[in-house]
Parts: sequence; C-alpha cells; structure tokens
Amino acid sequence: MLFSYSISKQTNSLQVPKMKDLTIDNITENVHFINGQCSDRRLKFIVERLVSHAHDLVRETRLSTEEWMAAIQFLTEVGQTCTETRQVIPPTPWQMHSSHLHCVNTDWHVPNESKEFILLSDILGISLLVDAIDHPKPPGASEGTVLGPFHTHEAQNIEHGGGIASDPEGEPLLVLCTVRDSEGKALEDVKIDVWETDSKGFYDVQYANHDGPDGRAILTSDKDGIFWFKAIVPVPYPIPSDGPVGKLLAKLGRHCYRPSHMHFMFSHPIYDPLITALYLKNDPYETSDAVFGVKNTLVVELGRVEDEAIASKYGVKVGSALMKYDFVLVTKEEALNLRYQNAAAAMKAQGKKMEYLNGLPVPEVD
Amino acid sequence: MLFSYSISKQTNSLQVPKMKDLTIDNITENVHFINGQCSDRRLKFIVERLVSHAHDLVRETRLSTEEWMAAIQFLTEVGQTCTETRQVIPPTPWQMHSSHLHCVNTDWHVPNESKEFILLSDILGISLLVDAIDHPKPPGASEGTVLGPFHTHEAQNIEHGGGIASDPEGEPLLVLCTVRDSEGKALEDVKIDVWETDSKGFYDVQYANHDGPDGRAILTSDKDGIFWFKAIVPVPYPIPSDGPVGKLLAKLGRHCYRPSHMHFMFSHPIYDPLITALYLKNDPYETSDAVFGVKNTLVVELGRVEDEAIASKYGVKVGSALMKYDFVLVTKEEALNLRYQNAAAAMKAQGKKMEYLNGLPVPEVD
Repeated sequence: MLFSYSISKQTNSLQVPKMKDLTIDNITENVHFINGQCSDRRLKFIVERLVSHAHDLVRETRLSTEEWMAAIQFLTEVGQTCTETRQVIPPTPWQMHSSHLHCVNTDWHVPNESKEFILLSDILGISLLVDAIDHPKPPGASEGTVLGPFHTHEAQNIEHGGGIASDPEGEPLLVLCTVRDSEGKALEDVKIDVWETDSKGFYDVQYANHDGPDGRAILTSDKDGIFWFKAIVPVPYPIPSDGPVGKLLAKLGRHCYRPSHMHFMFSHPIYDPLITALYLKNDPYETSDAVFGVKNTLVVELGRVEDEAIASKYGVKVGSALMKYDFVLVTKEEALNLRYQNAAAAMKAQGKKMEYLNGLPVPEVD
Repeated sequence: MLFSYSISKQTNSLQVPKMKDLTIDNITENVHFINGQCSDRRLKFIVERLVSHAHDLVRETRLSTEEWMAAIQFLTEVGQTCTETRQVIPPTPWQMHSSHLHCVNTDWHVPNESKEFILLSDILGISLLVDAIDHPKPPGASEGTVLGPFHTHEAQNIEHGGGIASDPEGEPLLVLCTVRDSEGKALEDVKIDVWETDSKGFYDVQYANHDGPDGRAILTSDKDGIFWFKAIVPVPYPIPSDGPVGKLLAKLGRHCYRPSHMHFMFSHPIYDPLITALYLKNDPYETSDAVFGVKNTLVVELGRVEDEAIASKYGVKVGSALMKYDFVLVTKEEALNLRYQNAAAAMKAQGKKMEYLNGLPVPEVD
C-alpha cells in the first residue's frame, strides 16, 4: 500500500479510542481530542473554543441540514463577494430607500458551489453533528454519516449489475445490497445514489479533464428491495489539501485522510432521506477519519465470491471482492416524530421553554 | 435631506437607548436588541445564539485584531476556493505524503481582499469587540472604533491645509486637530490617515471608474501636535447592501446606514495604533449605527468659522463648517500592560488558569 510509512507513523502517534460512533453528545470531545495534536498552543486554544461554541450553537438551536446549507451558501457568497475594492454601482435613492424597509425573501437552497466550506464544516465535526440532529435514527435503522463535498448530480441511472467505475487499475468489487423498512419489509423503487473514488483516491470531478460521470451511478431497488452493481474496492484518500482547509489541518497537526468507503444516498417519497457510507474494516484511518464519519454499524468486512455458481450468476470471477449490506430506512413520519422528541428533550435539558415552527424550536413569545 | 421619511420611520420604530458607548461587556445585548426587529422568529433565534457564541469566543480567548484578520483572511480564501467541481490536479504521492506530516507555517497577515467578511464582522458587533479588547484605552485616551472595509493604501501625503476631497457638491469643512499623549504633551511626527465618503455617501473605491485616491489623505502632525486639512461635511450612507451581508441585514429587519463620520488612523513607533472616527452630533443614525461604531466621546458638534481673521488664516470662507478635536494617544507599553491586566482579570473572572504567550492567554499545561 502506498503511504504505509506515514500511515503507521500517524496511527502509532495517535491515541484515538473514541473516534468512532460519534454522537450528538460525544462528538465535541472527540474533535478536541484530535485537534489536541496541534503544536501551536494559541491556535489549539482558539480552535478548541471555536469548536465548542459552534457545536453548542448547533445543539442549542437544533440546526437543520437545510439551515446549515443555507449558512454555508451565505458564507460562500460572502467570500466570493470579497474583492480588493468591493466596487459597487451606486444604487438609485429609491433602491436604497426601499432596501432597508423590506426583508428580502431569498429562498433557502442547497449550495452547489460551496465545496470548501462543506469541507471546513466536515473537519470541524459540524456536518456530522447537524446530520445526527436532523436525521435521527431509531435502533435498528441504518445510521447516516457525512455527505462530503463530492456528491454530484451528474450520475446516470444504471440497471442492476451495471458497473459504476471504469478504472482498470481498481480491484473489481461486487456490491450486493438490500433496502428494507424497520419491520423488515422489502422496499421497492427506492432511488439509490452511489459514488466512490478511483483507485488513486480521486473522484471524477477532481480531474481537470473530467468529462462525464465515473465512479458514480443511480440505481432503483427491485420488488425484493435488492440493488446490486459492480464497482472497485474503495481506497483511503486525502481530502483536498491544497486549499485553506488543508492548510488548517496541517497547522492543527492532523492528517487529511479518509478511510476507504463507498457513499450511498437513499431517496423515496415516504422514507426519510438516508445519506450514509460503508467503511472497510481494518482501514488504517478507521479511527481517525479527517471528517469524523465512521460508525461501527457502517463498518463492513469485505468477503470473496467463492462459489462458481454465484460468480456466474452475477457475472464476476471467482475470488472477486464482495461487499454486502442490508440497509434499513425509517419513514419521514418516524424521523419527524423522533426529531421532535429529541429536540423537546434537549430543550428541556437546557431549561428552555420553546415553541416549534416547522418542527424547529424558537423561544416562546413572552 | 434625502431619505427623511425612511429615517424618521426607522428611528421612530426603534427604541435604542444603549446603542452608543458599546463596551466589551454590553455589546452583545445591544446587538441582540437591534436584531430583535427580525420578523423571522427562527432566524432571530439562530442569530441571537450565533452572536452570543461568537462574542463569548472573542471574550474567552481575548482574540487579537491580528488573529481576527487572519481568521477573516482564512474564511475569504475558503469562500474563494469554492467552485462547482473543486478541481484539483492530482498531487504526486510525495506531495501527499509530506503534506500531512508537517505544519505549514503560513504567515498571518492582514487581508486586503476580505471586504465582505469584514462587513459581516462589523454588523455582528465582532469588529468593535475585538478592537476594544486589543486596543484598550485608559480614561482620558481617545477611544477607538471600527476600521470598516474602506481604508486603502492609496492615500497620498498632503501638507497641512491641503484638501482631501474633490467633490464640488460636498459642503466645505475645515478640520483642525491636535494629537497629544496622556499627559498633554504635543506629539510630533504622528502619521494620520484620514478618509471619508463623497457627498453621495460613497468612498472613492466604490466607483467602477475609480481612478486614484479621493476623500482620503495622510498627514503628519507638527511640533505642536497640530494637523489640519480641508474636507467636506460627512453624510450618512448605507454600507454596501447589494451583497450577502446587505441581504442578511434586510432579513434581520435592520437598516444598513452608518451615521455621518470621518475616519482617522494614527501611527507612531512609540504609540499604540489608534483606529477611530468622529461622528456628527444629531445624525439620524447616531443611535442605530449598522456597525456599532458610535461612542459618546467620539461625537462632535460642528462649529462655524465666524472670525474673518481665522477664515483668512486657514484659507476658508467665513461661515465654513468647522470640526475640531484633540486626540490623545497611549504608548504601546501602556496599551500592552492594560491589555494584559484586562485579560488576566477576565480569565480570573472566568475561573481559568492561563499562561500568556506573546501577551495572549493559553491554558496552562497540566
């Protein structure tokens, strides 16, 4: 494996017993823990307080994914509005007159040009925390994890058994999955977005000569809740480290690697969206993911296709790597109820009297 | 005056008794107060918690101006690194290998392309708070206020009596000032940067056809601590409202105006830098400045040049508007000591045991 020296040096120098299964309650201390490697004591102190306040802000407001995406979009626009001179064509008096009397009803929408801010949110543990609050899972349901900055809307629909990756240097992987509800009933017509890097650890869109989707596809579950496809064995990879977020990680003394994983996103009119990923067991970065995404229930051990009949049925060679997983979705109604119950319990624990607007807390009017 | 209807409507609808003389301790409640006009209860709640946490972060860490500028520069870079695809030329394995083992020693430096983030910091009261902490003033010393996003490095040196503004529509203003130390001694050779808008409320750099400095200049105090120049009477103006920060103000139900003022920045090898401004008494926005800059000691009442001999001496017409002010600087040593004393008192009040590195607190090593 490439980078074996740096990997072993990294994992040996870190004591990271709690870096998996991060929850709303334990994520903050874990982010502090990994940032504790920073040799700049002042920077370490400031980032420790920043992370505490940012996480508390999310917990206190039960910030939703939609709201956080709107905030990221806002910050991106602020950054992109910055220029040397901040030139402005003078508005007319009437524009000035009216602009401060009326709230602009700008639609909240998901940003599509905010990758570096999403990355910043990811490495500070905010993304995972927001997802955990917004998409709570009852016991038995598949857990969610960070979306990451590399989901695109370019992926094409493929049939079961189709291949998502063209990289000839990748190790072939057969992926066999099912999707069910919390009572075990097979779910048909669930749309599943899957994406992964190539064998060098890069997503298609990271290449300057990128010319169409690769390493990604959209499938639809059949009447037995089954979906299956051919891919390549995921590899660990560094998140983009050439930008300001990569420089911050370096200043914090942190590595920028994610453990090997494959992304899955499930959509269905009745079921709560599930954004998740499967992680390979024994990956060197399993307990020090740069973006805090790993959960025990999402770690899988790869198998092998050993039976000739199975190999023939799925059109792969005997000995091929095999990833199997059974996903469990909760309904939007279940998720909404659980989100409300969790929020009410959290607000009560904080001693706050709140009302709920669209399911989100606001202080009661005096 | 333009906009009289909106101004009176604005000031009538607001009860803002404490919006002047903002301090490290009272600024947060004042920012909450002005944001309390927001009709979107969820946004109001989120921003209330955001402002509280951001201000607490600054107070807890005694964040310095240099550090805040570095943070703003960082956020700007993050925003400007955001692209649809976040394309990356794949690094070589060795680049990847080494990048996460060594901290990048990026120099902190003051951003010069971060105007919109500075504006965001300003309208959340963070800029004033950081300045108050970083440049504490003992009784009798001239107070500081927000730098704002329109200081440039284009200004030319002028002689005493020179004019800084070319706008023929501005009302001529004679500015007569002195600069002294805290014991009343005149200070020679202090460099004073002054800048203001034109009569329409726009700084030179806001015009698309901007072609060199206007409304700004650099003077040097003489042996009696005197500096004087000709300018125009400042007018209230909106901060740039076409960008995301302007949209946020609108969502918050806030106007985007600053009261009439003239900026001053003092530099001298021995004296603590003073970034300040003088505000015109009875300006309609005196108690609701969009960026929280007004302090009682910085509010001046314009006079008139009534004496023919004085008018002749300064080369202005009888009846010209006159602004007079005596500035008092503290030494860098005084400021450093006061900063340290204030930080130590704040840390003690927070029950924290801290050490000081370069005058800034960090937790004691266990």
